[in-house]
Amino acid sequence: MIGRTHNCGEVLEQIIGEKVRLKGWVQTRRDLGQVIFIDLRDRSGIVQVVFQPEVSVEALQIADKIRSEYVIDIEGIVTVRDEATVNPKMATGKVEVLASKIEVLNKSKSLPFQIEDGANTSEDIRLKYRYLDLRRPQMQETFKLRHKTTKLIRDYLDENAFLEIETPMLTKSTPEGARDYLVPSRVHHGEFYALPQSPQIFKQLLMVSGFERYYQIVRCFRDEDLRADRQPEFTQVDIETSFMDKEDLLAMMEEMMVKVMKEAKGIDVTAPFQRLSYNEAMNRYGSDKPDTRFEMELVELSAIVKDCGFKVFTSAIENGGIVKGLNVKGGALKYSRKEIDDLAKFVAIYGAKGLAWLKVEEDGFKGPIAKFLTEEEQSQMHTAFNAEVGDLLFFGADKKKVVFDSLGALRLKFAKELELIDKTKFNFLWVTEFPLLSYDEDADRYVAEHHPFTRPVKEDIELLKTAPEKVRADAYDLVLNGYELGGGSQRIYERSLQEDMFTALGFSDEEARNQFGFLMEAFEYGTPPHGGIALGLDRLIMLLAGRTNLRDTIAFPKTASASCLLTNAPSGVSDAQLKELNLSVIPKKEEKVQA
Amino acid sequence: MIGRTHNCGEVLEQIIGEKVRLKGWVQTRRDLGQVIFIDLRDRSGIVQVVFQPEVSVEALQIADKIRSEYVIDIEGIVTVRDEATVNPKMATGKVEVLASKIEVLNKSKSLPFQIEDGANTSEDIRLKYRYLDLRRPQMQETFKLRHKTTKLIRDYLDENAFLEIETPMLTKSTPEGARDYLVPSRVHHGEFYALPQSPQIFKQLLMVSGFERYYQIVRCFRDEDLRADRQPEFTQVDIETSFMDKEDLLAMMEEMMVKVMKEAKGIDVTAPFQRLSYNEAMNRYGSDKPDTRFEMELVELSAIVKDCGFKVFTSAIENGGIVKGLNVKGGALKYSRKEIDDLAKFVAIYGAKGLAWLKVEEDGFKGPIAKFLTEEEQSQMHTAFNAEVGDLLFFGADKKKVVFDSLGALRLKFAKELELIDKTKFNFLWVTEFPLLSYDEDADRYVAEHHPFTRPVKEDIELLKTAPEKVRADAYDLVLNGYELGGGSQRIYERSLQEDMFTALGFSDEEARNQFGFLMEAFEYGTPPHGGIALGLDRLIMLLAGRTNLRDTIAFPKTASASCLLTNAPSGVSDAQLKELNLSVIPKKEEKVQA
Repeated sequence: MIGRTHNCGEVLEQIIGEKVRLKGWVQTRRDLGQVIFIDLRDRSGIVQVVFQPEVSVEALQIADKIRSEYVIDIEGIVTVRDEATVNPKMATGKVEVLASKIEVLNKSKSLPFQIEDGANTSEDIRLKYRYLDLRRPQMQETFKLRHKTTKLIRDYLDENAFLEIETPMLTKSTPEGARDYLVPSRVHHGEFYALPQSPQIFKQLLMVSGFERYYQIVRCFRDEDLRADRQPEFTQVDIETSFMDKEDLLAMMEEMMVKVMKEAKGIDVTAPFQRLSYNEAMNRYGSDKPDTRFEMELVELSAIVKDCGFKVFTSAIENGGIVKGLNVKGGALKYSRKEIDDLAKFVAIYGAKGLAWLKVEEDGFKGPIAKFLTEEEQSQMHTAFNAEVGDLLFFGADKKKVVFDSLGALRLKFAKELELIDKTKFNFLWVTEFPLLSYDEDADRYVAEHHPFTRPVKEDIELLKTAPEKVRADAYDLVLNGYELGGGSQRIYERSLQEDMFTALGFSDEEARNQFGFLMEAFEYGTPPHGGIALGLDRLIMLLAGRTNLRDTIAFPKTASASCLLTNAPSGVSDAQLKELNLSVIPKKEEKVQA
Repeated sequence: MIGRTHNCGEVLEQIIGEKVRLKGWVQTRRDLGQVIFIDLRDRSGIVQVVFQPEVSVEALQIADKIRSEYVIDIEGIVTVRDEATVNPKMATGKVEVLASKIEVLNKSKSLPFQIEDGANTSEDIRLKYRYLDLRRPQMQETFKLRHKTTKLIRDYLDENAFLEIETPMLTKSTPEGARDYLVPSRVHHGEFYALPQSPQIFKQLLMVSGFERYYQIVRCFRDEDLRADRQPEFTQVDIETSFMDKEDLLAMMEEMMVKVMKEAKGIDVTAPFQRLSYNEAMNRYGSDKPDTRFEMELVELSAIVKDCGFKVFTSAIENGGIVKGLNVKGGALKYSRKEIDDLAKFVAIYGAKGLAWLKVEEDGFKGPIAKFLTEEEQSQMHTAFNAEVGDLLFFGADKKKVVFDSLGALRLKFAKELELIDKTKFNFLWVTEFPLLSYDEDADRYVAEHHPFTRPVKEDIELLKTAPEKVRADAYDLVLNGYELGGGSQRIYERSLQEDMFTALGFSDEEARNQFGFLMEAFEYGTPPHGGIALGLDRLIMLLAGRTNLRDTIAFPKTASASCLLTNAPSGVSDAQLKELNLSVIPKKEEKVQA
């Protein structure tokens, strides 16, 4: 026998009368006494195969014994279906294959769950049998989309003279940033490699090398406690360029995303993308990754309430904080008093000590705090909120961060509950002018908001020594529908400025030299101005595929405890393996006590 | 100022008279009193820039202070060079740029070595300053070639319906194969991930998932002692397909390599490639990765010498070994007696206990062993060797492996010394029908020659239980010019056969289940027949680039002791990091004694 002549999805009216050979999986089997129907599936689609005694008794007998997910190999003639049995839902629904031969290539036991989308199977079971879960149409589509998107990005970057260059996975552990995954060295006693959190330093060194335009779609690692949208290993589109300033780079990234959206999803996105400074994003949306598919912006109230009779407001302002509001249009009619009171618990997550609110009724504001506000103040608020009867107003009064975080989260919560989000929209935007540093109270020092190689904006370089907290970074985040798709910056390329940066971060000269001496030395041998960006590929695919779980975009993901339920990684290893690495495992505390 | 208008290599006669802005590195600077010439380099090439007082005194003054590898930004007019100063060796040699402006973007200290190919700098220094070494033209070309080749492979596979799917880097440690790099888990006390030696199991699971055609260009890891052509991390083109037999797959790989050779190197390679069975390759070339760019095949002599008077030959045959010869044409005149005797040391590396030889002279064979051979035996040998006056004949008599290894190595050594190799040739060939298993004397059990998922050829499946050593694998290696470019096989897809394979390998049922139970279980849910191949990308690039050192194809390689001389990885880590991983380092022995 020769090989397959067609894929299942290719068996269409054009080839009626032809003999075909197909291979694939039995999706369903229906036994109508003397005739057996099989829906045969492969990667391309599904086609109906019919076994009749008139065509082959032998084939019918074999077909009688097959079950769902058997792998079979059939030969037959493509015929037109009776008008009555045409299935308009199937691409191949006008035809069927009259099978003259069948061979069972492999059998299947009964499945632990059905191969269908939307089945109510626990994710743990799906992860244990990931190879079955990946057979679902939605999964197959997601990985086809991932392939296509990746290819589009590679093609775009290739056309724009980027070189794909690989960087090491076994690298050096550095104290900045997230926690490293370590890899013990067998040859170097007591020493370790680290898996890269990103190829940051290597891509900068490639710019020192004169490659000018580098890209890599690369695995990165962070040993952090996981959330729904985090994985211990993730993939980023990593880009670095020389001699291109921020404007050049952002324009190029916009062109790339426009192309990806058009060709992978058929969606027209317009460039240039909206830009918001970090301050504007926080003030208007309470987030540095705002979802702009709906309005409901935060309302600035500090000036209005600074002398009002409500202590919570005035003392927030006196302590250097702010008062902002959120108008949930028509919310007064949709939320009960109990539901509103329960929201105080929700904002408590973000550090808010309470949640003041007011309803807008025909005869004015109603609610616990109305009595503290003068008529004038209420009137000014009415205007600021653009209030209408039926609106529900919420207030945040605290340090900036608490107000932004709590009202920003409330804004998203209401948008979801009230279905304000147009899910067909893809709103790309840039957030720029991030603070370069933030003060870490625990560590009692400044830490880099992005990483220590981020360049300050030109006008602020002088402030690095005098007022580090005021320095803005020449950095940019790409945001899509409320998710941070990626971020980047122009980089420091002068040794002296890099030294100033490490000083601002509280590094001693020796620490800086030990950790990053080789990079600072490289800066002294003709390093070009350079900058780059990294985009989270898993997250991009999640958004393009319309999914909400990052694990659905990764073929073999880990659970929240960083386990693989399929292979049972991580696992114990032999004493011999540990000995070769000169390591011993410290016994668990309970075991110590028992010993 | 706006950005670059051109790359240096684009400044050609077509744009004479135009104003250009260029950015790049100062390759050389020549000061001719009132005029300064600079060769300006970027990724695209080099162009001459001239500073004259007539054009700009200010620019000339700045140019006076710049040195090699400074990064500069210039503006000027493209002009034709005087006939006398045209440089035919440069693509841009007919023009020069009269600079009106110059800005120094960054300075450079004196370099530790010159940026030029063929400089006599130690590799350690080059690796320490890798970012400078990568500026060399040969390095730049190698990484452009690597990018291009990778892109061609991706495009070919995309056109042939392969999906790029990523597999995990944090996987499960398995005892088969090479030594794993381990990654301690912070969350799971005393447990470890392993970095993948290849995505073997995952790619097979993707076939179980119905993806049918998978590829990935993926990093793999082996913690083995390194040789010149090994790195702890390496990149492979990883491919797996369902429903394609060996012939389909090899034809596709041939088409891909023909395309790569044509488009990356402009070289026509003819498909189908030559095929040799493992036995034929060993018998003719003493190697399973023969270099067929030259002849000098091994000559079978066992039948001729089996009753001869030379004990070394007859006892080798009596002990189940063989006697083979190698004819170095014209070698008798080129090698001295001492040189010939020294070769015994060379073959001793491969276990040979000596190296018999003969010279072919006008009046017959001359040499220490001639006296042991009858006239009839000498005559038969003469014919077998196709001997001519001046030939130098070598003999291997031992177990098959020793004879193959020693004569195979001698064959390559003579080919290099006598310059028999046509370096313009690219001889691709397939080696097939490998033994499935080999007996490991140390472990006292059979081990898989490829890996335990390799399928036996159909006719030999029954032998797996009765005569495992006779079973041939349905496997294939792709060989190029004496290097193994890659290899693959059809896979086992039935649980029962996989169990038989583990039994043949000496696994208990429990061991097999613990390590590979999830894979064997997957085989029970409709696993299609499948097979694949993996090609070593680093080695392919090395051969295409005409290099002999694998490190020249990797941007940031490790040394033979798996160190990175640039970043100093691996390195010590903090006690806090170790404590989080519940690990302690076992002190070195010397330290223990001192303590």
